[in-house]
Amino acid sequence: MKISLSAAFALFCLSLFPAGALAQRPVTYGQLLHANDTPQDWLMYGGDYSSQRFSRLTQVNRENVKNLRASWIYQPNAMGEAPIESSAIVEGGVMYITEPPSTVTALDARYGTRIWSWSPKMPARIYTIGVHRSNRGVAVYGNTVYVGTLDCHLVALDAITGAVKWDVHVDQNDQGYSMTGAPRVLDGKVIMGVSGGDVGIRGFLAAYDAKTGKLLWRCYTIPLPGEPGSETWGSSMAGVGGGGTWGTGSYDPDLNLIYWGTGNPAPDYNGEARPGANLYTDSVIAVDPDTGKMKWFFQFTPHDTHDWDSIQVPVLFDADVDGKPRKLLAFANRNGFYYVLDRVTGKFVAGGPFVKQTWAKGLDANGQPIMLPNTEPTPQGQLIFPDGHGGTNLNSPSYNPRTRLFYVNARETGAYTISGRPKVNFPDFGGGGRMNLSGDVQYGAVRALEAVTGEMKWEYKLLAPAEVSTLSTAGGLVFSASNEGDFFALDADTGKLLWAFSAGGSDCEANPVTYEIAGKQYVLFAAGNAFIAFSLP
Amino acid sequence: MKISLSAAFALFCLSLFPAGALAQRPVTYGQLLHANDTPQDWLMYGGDYSSQRFSRLTQVNRENVKNLRASWIYQPNAMGEAPIESSAIVEGGVMYITEPPSTVTALDARYGTRIWSWSPKMPARIYTIGVHRSNRGVAVYGNTVYVGTLDCHLVALDAITGAVKWDVHVDQNDQGYSMTGAPRVLDGKVIMGVSGGDVGIRGFLAAYDAKTGKLLWRCYTIPLPGEPGSETWGSSMAGVGGGGTWGTGSYDPDLNLIYWGTGNPAPDYNGEARPGANLYTDSVIAVDPDTGKMKWFFQFTPHDTHDWDSIQVPVLFDADVDGKPRKLLAFANRNGFYYVLDRVTGKFVAGGPFVKQTWAKGLDANGQPIMLPNTEPTPQGQLIFPDGHGGTNLNSPSYNPRTRLFYVNARETGAYTISGRPKVNFPDFGGGGRMNLSGDVQYGAVRALEAVTGEMKWEYKLLAPAEVSTLSTAGGLVFSASNEGDFFALDADTGKLLWAFSAGGSDCEANPVTYEIAGKQYVLFAAGNAFIAFSLP
Repeated sequence: MKISLSAAFALFCLSLFPAGALAQRPVTYGQLLHANDTPQDWLMYGGDYSSQRFSRLTQVNRENVKNLRASWIYQPNAMGEAPIESSAIVEGGVMYITEPPSTVTALDARYGTRIWSWSPKMPARIYTIGVHRSNRGVAVYGNTVYVGTLDCHLVALDAITGAVKWDVHVDQNDQGYSMTGAPRVLDGKVIMGVSGGDVGIRGFLAAYDAKTGKLLWRCYTIPLPGEPGSETWGSSMAGVGGGGTWGTGSYDPDLNLIYWGTGNPAPDYNGEARPGANLYTDSVIAVDPDTGKMKWFFQFTPHDTHDWDSIQVPVLFDADVDGKPRKLLAFANRNGFYYVLDRVTGKFVAGGPFVKQTWAKGLDANGQPIMLPNTEPTPQGQLIFPDGHGGTNLNSPSYNPRTRLFYVNARETGAYTISGRPKVNFPDFGGGGRMNLSGDVQYGAVRALEAVTGEMKWEYKLLAPAEVSTLSTAGGLVFSASNEGDFFALDADTGKLLWAFSAGGSDCEANPVTYEIAGKQYVLFAAGNAFIAFSLP
Repeated sequence: MKISLSAAFALFCLSLFPAGALAQRPVTYGQLLHANDTPQDWLMYGGDYSSQRFSRLTQVNRENVKNLRASWIYQPNAMGEAPIESSAIVEGGVMYITEPPSTVTALDARYGTRIWSWSPKMPARIYTIGVHRSNRGVAVYGNTVYVGTLDCHLVALDAITGAVKWDVHVDQNDQGYSMTGAPRVLDGKVIMGVSGGDVGIRGFLAAYDAKTGKLLWRCYTIPLPGEPGSETWGSSMAGVGGGGTWGTGSYDPDLNLIYWGTGNPAPDYNGEARPGANLYTDSVIAVDPDTGKMKWFFQFTPHDTHDWDSIQVPVLFDADVDGKPRKLLAFANRNGFYYVLDRVTGKFVAGGPFVKQTWAKGLDANGQPIMLPNTEPTPQGQLIFPDGHGGTNLNSPSYNPRTRLFYVNARETGAYTISGRPKVNFPDFGGGGRMNLSGDVQYGAVRALEAVTGEMKWEYKLLAPAEVSTLSTAGGLVFSASNEGDFFALDADTGKLLWAFSAGGSDCEANPVTYEIAGKQYVLFAAGNAFIAFSLP
C-alpha cells in the first residue's frame, strides 16, 4: 500500500476539506440482494444484480439538472497507461475505484480525498495483446474489496486499510490470461472472468470462496476435444480458443443463475482453422453459482470472424410478452443486434438490429443470424458494419423500469475487415479492420429502445462513436458522455439534452454512477485522467 | 500541427457546445502597454508589464466567490512528462496555453474546445538536467504566438492556424541550453531567457526581431574571463557558469528597462571551484531593451551554494517611501528574503525574511546578507532553511494596488544540504539536499506582505509547501492553490478562506489567470492533467 506525502498532508488540511465521519460498515449479502432499496450507495458493478444501472434517487431531476456542477475532481496520475474504465462502488460514504492498470483506491466520496491506494507488484512485462492495460472496477463484500489484476491475480483487500487479505494466482499471464473486469460477488463467493481471448486462451469463469480465496469451481467457455461443443470446432482444437469473460455478469437470486457474456473465438479474423459455430464463444451463458454447471447458453454470433466479443452486460428485467409475465434478459450485442431472451430457458423472445449491420439478413425464429454472402474478411478488406468495436462494446447500457426503455450508447461504424494468418507462438489478431472509412458516415448515438421489442423510441446523436455507459435515474434522466469527454444528461422520455459539461479528456470509457451523502446526490463521471463528481449547489 | 479526430468531430458537435464567433485580432503594442485597461483579456505573463498579476475584474468578488463552479475542463494528455506550469494568455476569446513539454494549444476560452495544437519535432534525447520537461507559457503579439522549446528553439506560430512562421535555434541543447520560460514581448522585440544553469551554461537574455526572428542582441549573465565581473569567480572560469534566465522578466516602458532574475552559479553545491560572489548569478538585472546593455544589477545571494535561483518574477510598483514617491521593484527570493529595490537605480530600499531562514543574520544597509558561520554544505549534510526549492520558487506572486499588499505562496522548508564534487563532462548537481526532515515542521502559506516594508499582514497556512502562483483581483480576492490541487480564494484584506475546490491533481504549478467573455468572468486554474475554468452560474 502506498500513502503519498500529499495524502499525509491532506490529513492535516482540515480547514479546506473537513473529513466527515466515514461509516465503513461491512457490506452484507442482504444489502447486495436489495441494492435498489439503498440508492444512497452504489453497491456493485451494474448497480444491482440485474445490472439495470438504474437509481431511485430523484434529487437531481429533469427540472434542476441544468444546475449540476462539479463538486470535486480526483486525478489518479495514470495517464498514458490506458483509459479509465472503472465503475465506482460507493458504500457508507466511501468510494472504491480502480486506476489503470490495476490500482485500487478508496476515496471519501463526499470530498474526493484519498483514504488509501493499493497497487499490485506486477512483472515489468505483462502480456496484454488485445487487452487494455486498464481495470473496470472492484467488488465489495463484508469488509473486503476484490480486484482482478492485469497479471491475472485475484486479490482481496481490507476495505478499511487497503491491506492484502489474500492473493490468488488465477492463471498464467504468459499463456495470455489477464484480468481487467470487475468481479461479481454473491453470498460468500467471488465470481471472476478472464481476458485474453484474442490470443487463444481457454476462457472460463471461476468462483472463489470470498473469505479464504479457495477455488470453488471453474466453468470453461471452450470445451476440451471430445467434450460437448467440441464438434463445433472442426477436427482439431489445436491453436484455437478464446471465449474470454472480461465483462461482468448479472445474477438472478430467485433462479439462482448467473448470466455472463463470452468473447470471440481465436484466431479472430481467420475462421479456416476453426470450422463450425465455435461454442461457447460470443454467447451468453447461464451458470449455477453453486456448482459452476452451465444450465443453458445462447450464441449470438456463430463462427465469428469479426471480433464481436459478446461480453456486454446482460440486463435482467421482467415484463409482459403477449400478455404473459416473463423473466427476461436484454442484450445489445457488439454484432449490431439487440436480443431479448427468456432468462429461465435461454430461449429467444425478440430481437433485431439497433445499428446498421451488413452481415445478416436478420434473425430467424430462434434468434440465429441469417447470414448474407460475402461477409467474411478478405485479404483486400471486406466492408462490414459494425466494425470490430461493434454496435456497442464494453460500455454498459441501462434500463429504467418506469419508462421501460433500454438505453444504449450505440456505435454506427463500419470497417474493411481483413483476413490474415495468425502469427506463430504468441498468436495475435492475424488480420483486423481498417477502421477509418472515407466517405462513409460513422457516428454515435444514445438510443432508447423499447426493452421488450427493441424498437427505437428516440436517439441523441453524437458524431464520434463512443464507448461510454449510460446511467438511468428516477429523476427522469439518462446520463452519458461523448468519446471526447462531454458529459450530458438527457430526458429519459424524449432524449432531449438537459445538461452538458465539457471535461476535455478523450477516451471516456468509465461508467457513470450516482449516490447520495448527507442529503446530497452526486453523479460521478470520468474522462481522460479525471474522476469528476457533480452535484447541485 | 496536429488536429485530432476528436477535434474534427467537435466541429460538428454544435448541439452540445456552440462555438461563438471568435475575434482573433492582432495584438498591438498599445494593448500590451495598457493591459490593465482591458481586464477581459489576460495579455501576457504576469498580466501586465509590471507583473502584478492583478485584474480589475470585479464580477467574482468577496460576496459571491463561494458560488464559483467549474465551467469547463481541458485535459492535455501530457501526464507523466512534467507538471503543467503554463500561464495562459487570453485575447479576444482565444486562450493560448502550453502543455508539457513544449506544445502550444489554442482553445476557445469560453468552452475549452481546442482550435489548434502545435508540437515541435524534437530529438528523442534532450538534455534537461535540473530542468523540468515543461513550459511556462507563450507570448502573443500581432498575429503571432511565441514559444521557447525544450531543445532551445524560439518559434513563432500563426495565431489563427498554429502554422510555423519562423524557427530560430537559440543555442545548443547538447551544451545544456534549454527553454522553458515564457518569452516577454515588447514593441517589435521578443526577449527570451534560457534554462540549464545547473549544468554550467553561460546564461544570457536574447532579443529577437518579432517579425523575422533576427537576433538583435544577447546580454550575458556570466562574464568572460577578463570582463567586468570575472574577478568574482576566482582565478579561473573553467568548468563554472550558470546564471540561467528561465523565469520571465518585467518591463518599465517609461524607464525603458527590462528586469529579469538570474539563476544559481554552477556547480550548485560546491563553491570551492568558484571563490567570490559569482556575478551576475542570483541577481536581478536591469537591461536596456534597445541595446541589451545591463544598466544595473542587484545580487541577492553572493556565492550561492544552495541552488537559490533568483528567477522569481520582479514585481514593479510605485509607492511612497518616507513621504517621497518612488518607483520600486519587489522581489520575494528563493533565499528566504523579501526585497524592495529602487527600480531606477537598483539601490536597496527595504527587506527582510518572509520565511524561516538560518543562513544569514540579516541584510545590511545595502541589502547584502550578513552571513552566519557553518552554513555551507558539508559531506554529511548541513541543515539549512530554506531548502533548495527556496522560500518561494518559480511561482509568481501578485500585488494589489488597492490593498498595497504583496501576496506570495511561501514555503517553510529546510534541508540537509550536501556538498559534492560535480561529475566530469556533463556536470550535474554534485551534491544536493535531503529535503525530507524528520521531526521538523515544514509547511506552506499564502502570505500577504506590506509591499513597501515586507511586514506580514496575514497568512493562510497550508501544510504542504506549495509552488503555486497567486492572482489578485479588484473583487477583493487572492486566488491560489495547494500543492495537492486544492484551488481556493482568500479575502485580500484578511486572508479568510472564501471558496475552495478540490481538483485532485498533484504538482499544481500553473499560474491562475482571469478573463471575461460575453459578460462572464472566468478564473483558470490547472492541476494534475487538467486546466479548469471557473465562473459564476
